Amino acid sequence: MNRDSLKWLLASTFKGISQVILIENAISGFIILAAITIASVSLGAVTLLSAVIGTLIGKIGGADGESVNHGLYGYNSVLTGMALSLFLSGDDRFFIALVGAAIASVFTAAMIHFMRRTGIPVLTFPFIVLTWFLLLTTYRLVSFKISPNLTPQSLSNWTLNIKGETDWLDGAVNGIGQIFFLDNNLSGVLLFIAVFWAGWRLGVYAIIGNAAALLTSYGLGAEHHLIFMGLYGYNAILTMIAVAIVFKENAKYPLITGIIAACLTVPIAGSVVTWLLPYGLPALTMPFVLCTWLFLAARKVMPRF
Amino acid sequence: MNRDSLKWLLASTFKGISQVILIENAISGFIILAAITIASVSLGAVTLLSAVIGTLIGKIGGADGESVNHGLYGYNSVLTGMALSLFLSGDDRFFIALVGAAIASVFTAAMIHFMRRTGIPVLTFPFIVLTWFLLLTTYRLVSFKISPNLTPQSLSNWTLNIKGETDWLDGAVNGIGQIFFLDNNLSGVLLFIAVFWAGWRLGVYAIIGNAAALLTSYGLGAEHHLIFMGLYGYNAILTMIAVAIVFKENAKYPLITGIIAACLTVPIAGSVVTWLLPYGLPALTMPFVLCTWLFLAARKVMPRF
Amino acid sequence: MNRDSLKWLLASTFKGISQVILIENAISGFIILAAITIASVSLGAVTLLSAVIGTLIGKIGGADGESVNHGLYGYNSVLTGMALSLFLSGDDRFFIALVGAAIASVFTAAMIHFMRRTGIPVLTFPFIVLTWFLLLTTYRLVSFKISPNLTPQSLSNWTLNIKGETDWLDGAVNGIGQIFFLDNNLSGVLLFIAVFWAGWRLGVYAIIGNAAALLTSYGLGAEHHLIFMGLYGYNAILTMIAVAIVFKENAKYPLITGIIAACLTVPIAGSVVTWLLPYGLPALTMPFVLCTWLFLAARKVMPRF
Repeated sequence: MNRDSLKWLLASTFKGISQVILIENAISGFIILAAITIASVSLGAVTLLSAVIGTLIGKIGGADGESVNHGLYGYNSVLTGMALSLFLSGDDRFFIALVGAAIASVFTAAMIHFMRRTGIPVLTFPFIVLTWFLLLTTYRLVSFKISPNLTPQSLSNWTLNIKGETDWLDGAVNGIGQIFFLDNNLSGVLLFIAVFWAGWRLGVYAIIGNAAALLTSYGLGAEHHLIFMGLYGYNAILTMIAVAIVFKENAKYPLITGIIAACLTVPIAGSVVTWLLPYGLPALTMPFVLCTWLFLAARKVMPRF
Repeated sequence: MNRDSLKWLLASTFKGISQVILIENAISGFIILAAITIASVSLGAVTLLSAVIGTLIGKIGGADGESVNHGLYGYNSVLTGMALSLFLSGDDRFFIALVGAAIASVFTAAMIHFMRRTGIPVLTFPFIVLTWFLLLTTYRLVSFKISPNLTPQSLSNWTLNIKGETDWLDGAVNGIGQIFFLDNNLSGVLLFIAVFWAGWRLGVYAIIGNAAALLTSYGLGAEHHLIFMGLYGYNAILTMIAVAIVFKENAKYPLITGIIAACLTVPIAGSVVTWLLPYGLPALTMPFVLCTWLFLAARKVMPRF
Repeated sequence: MNRDSLKWLLASTFKGISQVILIENAISGFIILAAITIASVSLGAVTLLSAVIGTLIGKIGGADGESVNHGLYGYNSVLTGMALSLFLSGDDRFFIALVGAAIASVFTAAMIHFMRRTGIPVLTFPFIVLTWFLLLTTYRLVSFKISPNLTPQSLSNWTLNIKGETDWLDGAVNGIGQIFFLDNNLSGVLLFIAVFWAGWRLGVYAIIGNAAALLTSYGLGAEHHLIFMGLYGYNAILTMIAVAIVFKENAKYPLITGIIAACLTVPIAGSVVTWLLPYGLPALTMPFVLCTWLFLAARKVMPRF
């Protein structure tokens, strides 16, 4: 491997990491990796390796070169690798996570093909569905072991209890952290720096999106500990950035549409979690994907929004 | 707002109401609104407001003018508004219903985009999925309260008991009423008038569709009280009108295909209800959508049917 | 019916039977029918009639003549007829199975339309979804009776116990048998003959695919009695043939990709079965369909794989 290839691989890999938050910026990707690594070194290693694997699969498979360079074959691998290493248990989980990262890249290619004619981006759909599938596999294959935190539950036995402490400062920082499954404040601050580095507008909109979700979820009466752990915020941040900036096309009121979309991720998240309750699966970024697809597809028909 | 705009808004709104049964006719829409209002004034108000909201969202968003005029951005809003105000409880439900009506219009636009190249109509898919999502949200947000009639149930605890009175006269009128969540006979008669007003063939086919479903569901042994409340009939009526009249294209035997499709809605309805049992959700018009998509898409490949 | 029509009908029908394993060869179809008939005469009759019905529906409906001749309207009908006659109980089940075979042909046409622009084949998706729907209907219509082997179960009560005898010889033959719901060895041998008749490469790849699944499922720790009954093998065989031979296009490493895909059907099968547990439904060939779609769609974007 010569120096140019290495440079290309590093740039594409770090861009792959930054693409998780819809940004194409190698420095931002590097700061994100730092934010993950200070929370857990092994998680940082999985992140880096997953991004490399995803990018290489795209390259070896002969995918469109520019897409590979932009990190578009990396971000689903990053998230899949991270999620599997966190939601599985046992020593094999790091190996399974990296195999999952490879499949995520193939799945991304498949979804790019299926959605090409719609003009709607794939987002993190491959990561979500693949992770759900591999987590459910634990019920049938002994070498896959699910984390004890994920327990299936019948909806008929479910009761909602929203009480819990309110900690707005935590909520302000944790939303962005949860995009990467992190809930420590320092990582959250670093992630904000990564976003601001790529553009002040991205950072400001991320804050607005998170605030919209905090207020909506608090106002509609969601569980407090989920709100302030950032579990309603991360989908709103991603949705805000996607709808109001990255894919805004010729919309007349992208900021307003973005805020509405960010608020709507809250009931969607509540609903996705309920669908998944009998399977004990986490919602991951499905609320972001559904809400963003809704608004981006509608925009093709209602171009002013 | 000048007189012309008001006239336009009223025409589009009433057409939106009539589009629920695949008809574009403002007078029919008005009669339908009357049928709903005599059953419940508040439900009538929700219907009217939802249709207005859906139409205005289409207009403001810059959707294709003709589609807006034909009421195509109204009918999913009408159904969503009605369903949410009926299946939620608490005072906030009317407000949630109207917000739902607005989102339904955006969702309709999104689905129009996704399905455009297939040449298959969106039907009431946006209403169904949106309503399901917002109803499930009640399990996570205290300000959304679900009606106590909707209770999740494990399929392993389910036992089928079909016994109950047979009342063919009720069955004859209730099918059309259930399209609008109504089960009183007078409303049913008014709805038939609305359909016949738009064309005698529509009315006759609606009766045939309903009869096909009554006989099929009775013959296959469905629960009697569901049959005669019209809960197997409404999907068949809509399917019959869609397959045999509205989207019949160059089919050689549209009436026969329509009757077969109407009969097939019965097992599909039984199945959709079973899928939803663990979540306690109503089938809404999903059997109609699935069955109509099946036959309309097949017709593109088997043009004689 | 003159002699030419009869010859055409027989050829298309037997090709329809062979298309279940992605082969277009009337003699292979005839051998497969023999393999089924020696296991059960009534099942053989259902197979033959279902294939005839599916083909005729395609012809009468005016579908593209070449597709009908190649048996593309037969194979989903064959599988639906077989599955319904096996998974339902009661005397009506044969009649329901043949009606199901007719609908399967219509459903195939619909899916061909929906997937046309993607360039991805429909595979057995119509059979799977239709069979699931008709099986769930049993919970609502007394004239549909489900086999007592299919019982819904809550995921929270599920415990995995993989112990059981290991019988590699059974495993070697049963995988191909399970494609047609058969688990006797003689039928398995006949099916291999049918595949080899159509081409030695098809036969060799089928054996490789099955071996890949046996080793993967054993290595990952699946339930032994399922492995050696061939319940992990059949999806792998179909996937191998589809990915490495039938739809290989210009791939550079079709054999390697095929083996990877065959191995991946194992965790996918474990996952599909888990999704279906609360409904008590069998996975059928869904793991094959999902895994093959994944790789074929990815291949459009990553042409080397």
